Amino acid sequence: MDYVYGPGRNHLFVPGPVNIPEQILRAMNRNNEDYRSPAIPALTKTLLEDVKKIFKTTSGTPFIIPTTGTGAWESALTNTLSPGDRIVSFLIGQFSLLWIDQQQRLNFNVDVVESEWGQGADLDVLASKIAEDKDHTIKAICIVHNETATGVTNNLGTVRKILDNYQHPALFLVDGVSSICAIDFRMDEWGVDVALTGSQKALSLPTGLGIVCASPKAIEASKTAKSLRVFFDWKDYLKFYNLGTYWPYTPSVQLLYGLRAALDLIFEEGLDNIIARHNRLGKATRLAVEAWGLKNCTQKEEWYSDTVTAVVVPSYIDSAEIVRRAWKRYNLSLGLGLNKVAGKVFRIGHLGNVNDLQLLGCLAGVEMILKDVGYPVKLGSGVAAACAYLQNSIPMIPSRI
Amino acid sequence: MDYVYGPGRNHLFVPGPVNIPEQILRAMNRNNEDYRSPAIPALTKTLLEDVKKIFKTTSGTPFIIPTTGTGAWESALTNTLSPGDRIVSFLIGQFSLLWIDQQQRLNFNVDVVESEWGQGADLDVLASKIAEDKDHTIKAICIVHNETATGVTNNLGTVRKILDNYQHPALFLVDGVSSICAIDFRMDEWGVDVALTGSQKALSLPTGLGIVCASPKAIEASKTAKSLRVFFDWKDYLKFYNLGTYWPYTPSVQLLYGLRAALDLIFEEGLDNIIARHNRLGKATRLAVEAWGLKNCTQKEEWYSDTVTAVVVPSYIDSAEIVRRAWKRYNLSLGLGLNKVAGKVFRIGHLGNVNDLQLLGCLAGVEMILKDVGYPVKLGSGVAAACAYLQNSIPMIPSRI
Amino acid sequence: MDYVYGPGRNHLFVPGPVNIPEQILRAMNRNNEDYRSPAIPALTKTLLEDVKKIFKTTSGTPFIIPTTGTGAWESALTNTLSPGDRIVSFLIGQFSLLWIDQQQRLNFNVDVVESEWGQGADLDVLASKIAEDKDHTIKAICIVHNETATGVTNNLGTVRKILDNYQHPALFLVDGVSSICAIDFRMDEWGVDVALTGSQKALSLPTGLGIVCASPKAIEASKTAKSLRVFFDWKDYLKFYNLGTYWPYTPSVQLLYGLRAALDLIFEEGLDNIIARHNRLGKATRLAVEAWGLKNCTQKEEWYSDTVTAVVVPSYIDSAEIVRRAWKRYNLSLGLGLNKVAGKVFRIGHLGNVNDLQLLGCLAGVEMILKDVGYPVKLGSGVAAACAYLQNSIPMIPSRI
Amino acid sequence: MDYVYGPGRNHLFVPGPVNIPEQILRAMNRNNEDYRSPAIPALTKTLLEDVKKIFKTTSGTPFIIPTTGTGAWESALTNTLSPGDRIVSFLIGQFSLLWIDQQQRLNFNVDVVESEWGQGADLDVLASKIAEDKDHTIKAICIVHNETATGVTNNLGTVRKILDNYQHPALFLVDGVSSICAIDFRMDEWGVDVALTGSQKALSLPTGLGIVCASPKAIEASKTAKSLRVFFDWKDYLKFYNLGTYWPYTPSVQLLYGLRAALDLIFEEGLDNIIARHNRLGKATRLAVEAWGLKNCTQKEEWYSDTVTAVVVPSYIDSAEIVRRAWKRYNLSLGLGLNKVAGKVFRIGHLGNVNDLQLLGCLAGVEMILKDVGYPVKLGSGVAAACAYLQNSIPMIPSRI
Repeated sequence: MDYVYGPGRNHLFVPGPVNIPEQILRAMNRNNEDYRSPAIPALTKTLLEDVKKIFKTTSGTPFIIPTTGTGAWESALTNTLSPGDRIVSFLIGQFSLLWIDQQQRLNFNVDVVESEWGQGADLDVLASKIAEDKDHTIKAICIVHNETATGVTNNLGTVRKILDNYQHPALFLVDGVSSICAIDFRMDEWGVDVALTGSQKALSLPTGLGIVCASPKAIEASKTAKSLRVFFDWKDYLKFYNLGTYWPYTPSVQLLYGLRAALDLIFEEGLDNIIARHNRLGKATRLAVEAWGLKNCTQKEEWYSDTVTAVVVPSYIDSAEIVRRAWKRYNLSLGLGLNKVAGKVFRIGHLGNVNDLQLLGCLAGVEMILKDVGYPVKLGSGVAAACAYLQNSIPMIPSRI
Repeated sequence: MDYVYGPGRNHLFVPGPVNIPEQILRAMNRNNEDYRSPAIPALTKTLLEDVKKIFKTTSGTPFIIPTTGTGAWESALTNTLSPGDRIVSFLIGQFSLLWIDQQQRLNFNVDVVESEWGQGADLDVLASKIAEDKDHTIKAICIVHNETATGVTNNLGTVRKILDNYQHPALFLVDGVSSICAIDFRMDEWGVDVALTGSQKALSLPTGLGIVCASPKAIEASKTAKSLRVFFDWKDYLKFYNLGTYWPYTPSVQLLYGLRAALDLIFEEGLDNIIARHNRLGKATRLAVEAWGLKNCTQKEEWYSDTVTAVVVPSYIDSAEIVRRAWKRYNLSLGLGLNKVAGKVFRIGHLGNVNDLQLLGCLAGVEMILKDVGYPVKLGSGVAAACAYLQNSIPMIPSRI
Repeated sequence: MDYVYGPGRNHLFVPGPVNIPEQILRAMNRNNEDYRSPAIPALTKTLLEDVKKIFKTTSGTPFIIPTTGTGAWESALTNTLSPGDRIVSFLIGQFSLLWIDQQQRLNFNVDVVESEWGQGADLDVLASKIAEDKDHTIKAICIVHNETATGVTNNLGTVRKILDNYQHPALFLVDGVSSICAIDFRMDEWGVDVALTGSQKALSLPTGLGIVCASPKAIEASKTAKSLRVFFDWKDYLKFYNLGTYWPYTPSVQLLYGLRAALDLIFEEGLDNIIARHNRLGKATRLAVEAWGLKNCTQKEEWYSDTVTAVVVPSYIDSAEIVRRAWKRYNLSLGLGLNKVAGKVFRIGHLGNVNDLQLLGCLAGVEMILKDVGYPVKLGSGVAAACAYLQNSIPMIPSRI
Repeated sequence: MDYVYGPGRNHLFVPGPVNIPEQILRAMNRNNEDYRSPAIPALTKTLLEDVKKIFKTTSGTPFIIPTTGTGAWESALTNTLSPGDRIVSFLIGQFSLLWIDQQQRLNFNVDVVESEWGQGADLDVLASKIAEDKDHTIKAICIVHNETATGVTNNLGTVRKILDNYQHPALFLVDGVSSICAIDFRMDEWGVDVALTGSQKALSLPTGLGIVCASPKAIEASKTAKSLRVFFDWKDYLKFYNLGTYWPYTPSVQLLYGLRAALDLIFEEGLDNIIARHNRLGKATRLAVEAWGLKNCTQKEEWYSDTVTAVVVPSYIDSAEIVRRAWKRYNLSLGLGLNKVAGKVFRIGHLGNVNDLQLLGCLAGVEMILKDVGYPVKLGSGVAAACAYLQNSIPMIPSRI
């Protein structure tokens, strides 16, 4: 089934699914197992303990759910809220839009705060709404930490501050799909009530695990939340946690061993070093975009995303053609512009287990593609700008010193 | 993470997850890919076309959902029914019990027809209910084709006949998790409206795909069904089918390539040959059980399951000890007795990509374990009985003649 | 390339190449690496240190050569002997015959001591020759520890005693291809000068490494040995050992990581436990053969091999048909009878990372095949005999207690 | 065993072992098999037939030997020549030096034609020697097609012409280790008598197969050649070819299936397209070197190698430091300068299954390293030069158009 074979490696620079390191591929290369033997609970126990570290929480309860990010969203919402509940949600791009669509279809009363695509969540509006909401009709704030469609990172600390300023009890629900384990995220410090990610993002696994972490307050809320849920019900998980068998239904043992390997790699590199690496790759990409004379879709530096850069193309170019050409000529996978920015931006994902030289290969490829499609780029310019920064920033590999 | 290492192969004889053939492991041993490139839709198209063959349907619409069997259940129910709908459901073992629990939690009005564990669904009761239901208050019949907890296979053709006899329009929903692709199943011929299975069963893949197939009538029902669903909503799939991109959210490309390999193996062996193989392995197991002087949990021959055999142990033996000992001493994974039959039965799964000599190794192991726990088995008796049958039944391997 | 596909696992019971455990497959599932980076020498250092343990030597020097057993033979001979040197060599089966053929083609003066196939090396003849050889014209004794063609294990301790009794300085060269790491072997204690094995045997790796271990006396002999050798020359290895880079030419990094995994598994199980396991599997097989009413090709108990059993079939049966049928009908791989015993014996390998239930599946298969070819075996008889022994002998798996 | 872990892919740019494509890793991810079953001979037959295509021969006889390039050399020499035979051999770098060392140790009378490292074989000297050799004392010409240490490709067509001009019957033996399947090589057209390569080079497999191809004249010579050989003796292979079982000793089935996958990829891309790709990558690399203001070790354009570029560093820089730094900081593996050019050159391999963006990532890395070690490179300059050429040269991927 390699009917699209091209020589050499595929250069995977979509912001998820991301490259899987060989260590993880090896860990998953295995037969099925009886998940009711003592081995899988023992493994699961370490995973639940360790996965909390990537959320920077000690008090949270993690759920490793055989689903995707979309399912993780549904798990976060239905376990903590009841139909009709008022929630404030920020529409800033395609993924926040999809989450809001889900919120509405799940019958919540969604108070949508919209920003222009390329801008962050309007936290001033949030502050007003919270200030006005003396009766605490707002039950939850739902926010995408990093909007993957536009490369915008929201300031979660500020959200917390707003809630604290008004001692507002709303739950704080965060989509960290393209941020957690790559961009600084602090569940406990920021008082996040539910945070979630997917295995195919910064964890660098295949798709298949929605990882959701709930604060004690969220767990408490789940006891009275009236939204209907069965497959996504935390209650079933908690019951099996208590039994020590952990799984209400069959997990993928391959993904569990893969997650073990992923966490081991993360702890070996160090979570803060990983965040620093993503910051470095993000900056290098932005410097290249600037050198090419192109605009970042993200309108202000405070929102720059370290995991994905959406690049605005001149109006005479169709960004979808860039993505097509990348794949057809250079074996390079870039992200399309979605919805409102379709045709206008293409996206470079710099997320997951990826290093500087991989990114530079991608940037060199983008330069050639830009030329292919008629943009007068100076070949080498973006790579030069990125290298000038990287050559001063890349650390030695600790295990090799 | 092999802290439970024992020499040699693990003998995996739980009725799922089952052994994965090397061809499938190889197919899945791969990096992530951009699922929005032309390659994944092209692959998906072949999968959707070919997966219908294992349901024996030409008119059905398949959904390959990143979930487990439990999620596939939820998909079947919520897409076709509305809260409060009356459904008839058969309680004959742990898995039908769990499905009924889900049905109740999803707010359906479940008319439970209970049988003793070890018996099949009481279709006489069904006939009465259908006969009485002139007003068509029954919206669906939910039945587990093969109850994995007791090794009982229900007669789906009879269900169809009952409905037809009374020209009753109830939807016919079937859990085929431990039957489809192993036990004769005919979606179109039997007028099944929704059938479902999981990747870790007869398909011999890892866990992670819930495969649901809907008849045109079920698709029609989904347009008016009022049950809340988002993640499991067929509408989103159908929308992306129309777009030709197929995926409303990120699939596991590893599982897609694995499913391709699984289907290729199935078509190479031949679906009917696979069903014959399961029948042969089932019979061999039952002959061994008989030779051991033990009882099959399944009370009548008409219900015998060709994918799992639940063996009743004498009352002075704890069947859980058999399962523990199998794992601790013989590197053999057997199925526990669940719920009502906990401690009373252990289960031998003979499901998926497994052959005769593998089963015979398992049976020899079971004999030794029975002796270990104090049951006066004649060593070799079960294997002898199985071999006497198998030696006359095993076909030559076509590719090797 | 699976044009010989049959459902389920292949049952691999040839005496090499043997089953590879998943842990080793995983370790080898990797890209190439620069073997001149610091990583490979560091890995190699641990391998050279640890591989000595499977030879039970502390003073030996191991060579891990990218070759097969045939190459390892050549390495042993050409590094220690000079053309025309008189060596005593024992012809007891096909593999000793092939080694002797190599010895003759390498221009040594081979004093062949022949036994009937099925008997061990005639050590009385050796004793006479050594006693007579006052002038020490015999430069080396070459002996196959375990003759894989007939399932005969020679007594190496006796060889040592004979040499010691006469204070004879002949080198003691041992082919341990189907013994080392499976049958008790003590390089230092028995004063073996060169011992060798291949990766695809008890180490349970793919073919590709010839592992040769040389005593200090053998290393000394290599300095004056006049046999021509370049690829197999130990001198090049020793030079690179001194440099700390270890490899005179490119090794397979996959096999090196695989060997690391193999050694880790060996040390986890314990070398003596592995030897005990092979003894147990050997005994179980012999009990089955006896129960079938068939004869072991090995004529005396003292020579019984714990890694392979050659079974003599009645004269009216062609043993090759048994092997063909095993493969064509049962997906079972047995060993052919070779050369003098072609058509007369078939061989069951019970070597490497294999456990009791795997063997029992094989034995059950052999029973059916015997019936297929017209031998009046009582089905179940061999399995019963094996189980009766095994049920009393199999230890608990330590990691699972 | 990943004690040298660094995030992201290792960038493997040594001229072998090279990157293994996933298709090949998948093909090799398998258990051992009985190589005496009908499956392996059937596979082998296709390999022997197809492997001739990469040598561009129809009349040659291939040998797939479980060894390395060094062993393949020995096979070529010992099967065709007798001790004392005069051979002409060209010393132009480390690998030709090592081959000559082997030739001398194998007791041939080697007439060494030395060139400065960085120059090609001196074919004028060859012409003189051939002209003078009326008595045909020269039995063979041994030449390395592509000297991997200096990046020098010799003109084999000229060698053939010289021999033809004088109707000289000397055998023409070619080391094609770093050329065959990457640089134009025509066994039949150029009348090459023995050509050889290794699996870890352009075939992009792990190390472990020495592939040797012999002309009818070489096969004829092997019948009278008096050099001692056993492991490397073609006679044993030919005997088993005739028997249809193909293997005189145990092959690695993993490598055989891997070779099948490698050949399938080669034929899918097209051998001439592969050669064109290597030419493109070689040119791009040379343009980058020029843009950096550095010198190619190869002194004339006619000798430029399309599989490896040796870059001369200024005298104030130690090239080994470049290689160390590449690995320690950038996860980039470059080739060291060897022997005479140690410290003076580093090498960029652009060999095997590799594409343009991979190379550009490497080139960007080299630029940063050059800056690290104090060379005043203009960052981006090499990448710009390479891109300017590549953007006009890279073809569309045929399977994706």
